[in-house]
Amino acid sequence: MTMEKTLWQQVQLVKQKSPLVHNITNFVVMNNTANALLAVGASPVMAHARSEIREMAHIAHSVVINIGTLDEYWAESMLIAAEAAHTMQKPWVLDPVGAGATSFRDQTLQRLLQYRPAVIRGNASEIIALANINTTVTKGVDSTAQSNEAIDAGQILAGRYNTIVCISGETDIILNSKDQFFIRNGHPLMTKVTGLGCSATALIGAFTGVAEDKTLAVASAMSLLGIAGELAAKESPGPGSLQMLLIDKLYNITEEEFTAHLKIEQK
Amino acid sequence: MTMEKTLWQQVQLVKQKSPLVHNITNFVVMNNTANALLAVGASPVMAHARSEIREMAHIAHSVVINIGTLDEYWAESMLIAAEAAHTMQKPWVLDPVGAGATSFRDQTLQRLLQYRPAVIRGNASEIIALANINTTVTKGVDSTAQSNEAIDAGQILAGRYNTIVCISGETDIILNSKDQFFIRNGHPLMTKVTGLGCSATALIGAFTGVAEDKTLAVASAMSLLGIAGELAAKESPGPGSLQMLLIDKLYNITEEEFTAHLKIEQK
Amino acid sequence: MTMEKTLWQQVQLVKQKSPLVHNITNFVVMNNTANALLAVGASPVMAHARSEIREMAHIAHSVVINIGTLDEYWAESMLIAAEAAHTMQKPWVLDPVGAGATSFRDQTLQRLLQYRPAVIRGNASEIIALANINTTVTKGVDSTAQSNEAIDAGQILAGRYNTIVCISGETDIILNSKDQFFIRNGHPLMTKVTGLGCSATALIGAFTGVAEDKTLAVASAMSLLGIAGELAAKESPGPGSLQMLLIDKLYNITEEEFTAHLKIEQK
Repeated sequence: MTMEKTLWQQVQLVKQKSPLVHNITNFVVMNNTANALLAVGASPVMAHARSEIREMAHIAHSVVINIGTLDEYWAESMLIAAEAAHTMQKPWVLDPVGAGATSFRDQTLQRLLQYRPAVIRGNASEIIALANINTTVTKGVDSTAQSNEAIDAGQILAGRYNTIVCISGETDIILNSKDQFFIRNGHPLMTKVTGLGCSATALIGAFTGVAEDKTLAVASAMSLLGIAGELAAKESPGPGSLQMLLIDKLYNITEEEFTAHLKIEQK
Repeated sequence: MTMEKTLWQQVQLVKQKSPLVHNITNFVVMNNTANALLAVGASPVMAHARSEIREMAHIAHSVVINIGTLDEYWAESMLIAAEAAHTMQKPWVLDPVGAGATSFRDQTLQRLLQYRPAVIRGNASEIIALANINTTVTKGVDSTAQSNEAIDAGQILAGRYNTIVCISGETDIILNSKDQFFIRNGHPLMTKVTGLGCSATALIGAFTGVAEDKTLAVASAMSLLGIAGELAAKESPGPGSLQMLLIDKLYNITEEEFTAHLKIEQK
Repeated sequence: MTMEKTLWQQVQLVKQKSPLVHNITNFVVMNNTANALLAVGASPVMAHARSEIREMAHIAHSVVINIGTLDEYWAESMLIAAEAAHTMQKPWVLDPVGAGATSFRDQTLQRLLQYRPAVIRGNASEIIALANINTTVTKGVDSTAQSNEAIDAGQILAGRYNTIVCISGETDIILNSKDQFFIRNGHPLMTKVTGLGCSATALIGAFTGVAEDKTLAVASAMSLLGIAGELAAKESPGPGSLQMLLIDKLYNITEEEFTAHLKIEQK
């Protein structure tokens, strides 16, 4: 089967299975994250109360943890959810927003990593900070490095935590201990819409929640978002329109559009 | 007066009176809820601090409580607000998001119900879970049941708490101990936009905040949202556009559009 | 240099310097605030955890504090951030949402004001309540007064706290102890979109984070938002579209558009 077919099958699988994705994410992106998940056919739930975290994770297909607007309460909730997912052998995905920006973020991330996420998705600065192999200056939550500068860091993380790492950027790089995928979809205007990285992480949660091959699931989710963003950007006079039209395109993208625009390379 | 005229009068009344609606709602929908309330002419305020809940409820025309992203702090705030509204004899509306999904939600809902909401609005799964008459499996926050399967549950709730129950779905059912209204407006694409149920609850808050006949107020709010959604969906290539155009249509809907599309039946 | 050129230079400066703006703001507007900041070329970060407030403020160019959905925890975070900005001599901007509505808001605002914001931006009701010179009835978060009714209050605040005051409304008034600017841009439909005042405050944060002359920076930010809103409103059938197209226009506005539409008067 061609790579195009393989990845499109994953897109179809999410629509068929409609996985329940339990998100503990940040306040900025919750609305768009929920809409992105609905648009691809998944079923989102946002829940962070310590009193219900375990029960919610129990009924979910996967868990997404995004530390964008964390605080002490939310950090503990995230730890409970990560532990629950780990114990129940459900995939959970980590979005280390702003890794390296503050020591509180770094300490929380170190604690989360002990529960072995199935996937870590971040921009290059975040992945480098997470692997701690470089002294990097994170400037808030936007990356100051290119994704290929973070490959070494990604490989360290993949080896250390037996996880899949997705470094998003102009080129999205997905790697595990064996394989590397390079995806060259997307559009520069996407960097002007807040939280599309967070949407990527949420889609990865949906896709890994139902797929056998988790690395292909990540590749499929990232391709879908990149292509949808690319197509939506063509119709968008600015980032406001792009935010909206991207949701439309995630919903109505066809196999032909997906196949015609996919730019993926395996190494 | 025809039903069309009666319901449209309520729409006009909200524009004239511009009720202040105090919302304690979830993080996912706050922006859209506020915009939906502004679009119909109401004045939204979101406030959840225990230190100000009573004062805020005091200046509001109605209170809306939505447990979508509750936690222990917010649950107590909701209880203070419900008690305040009950004591001050102001209408308050309950949106039992995810009822049945976790025991924390169910316990919080039981505590809230003692303060007798004027209206309960939920999907069929939530209404059934709330009445506890069936063992139902709630899958996250999306309904797995049709609205007419929840009529018995709705009637139990209406009788037990002397309240109006609105079961939203493909058909919206509004019932009190005497009457039942069936509204067949809306569009399937609306289920792909997060939180339109929450918008419905907020509009019910606005309408019951100024109306004499609370049941007609609920019918008017639900009709308005259904018709606006229906008209907006016709122009929408996907759920992103629908979320936006629905707000436009709530703002600029005409009496002619409302009257021509209304599909309501009283039993 | 003409006023048009001077103000447009500030718009360009933000694009060149891409200031990191640390926001502690409300749940309703976080997404739009982040998108507005990205659209003008700034880099937003939202962070409220006491464990990281000081570090985040340290790497930021400016701090924006908006009490829209404050609670006891967030109020303390805001105080830490205001103190940090004050100590580090970074500009911070205060948005006193709902000032006068509850005593908790007023007490928190009084505590915040001791750290001397560079700018206070509010609607007329809020500015009057903050100066406490009139017994005013604030109805939720929407103003019941016109901006020119708040000039005396603004001058009291400007003198008492050695700050710049921006009273937004149909006419935006910007004043310090010496000068007054009156901006007559904007469009009535903007009042039907939630949180555009909050976007204004965030833009002021970006502009004052990089400008020498803070008063001109505020005038530039308010002009930009007003003109962008005016142009976007012309294309908008309702407030949903306006929210989106305003972000587009903040991103793609040209010098010609800015210059042709600017309506500013200095007194």
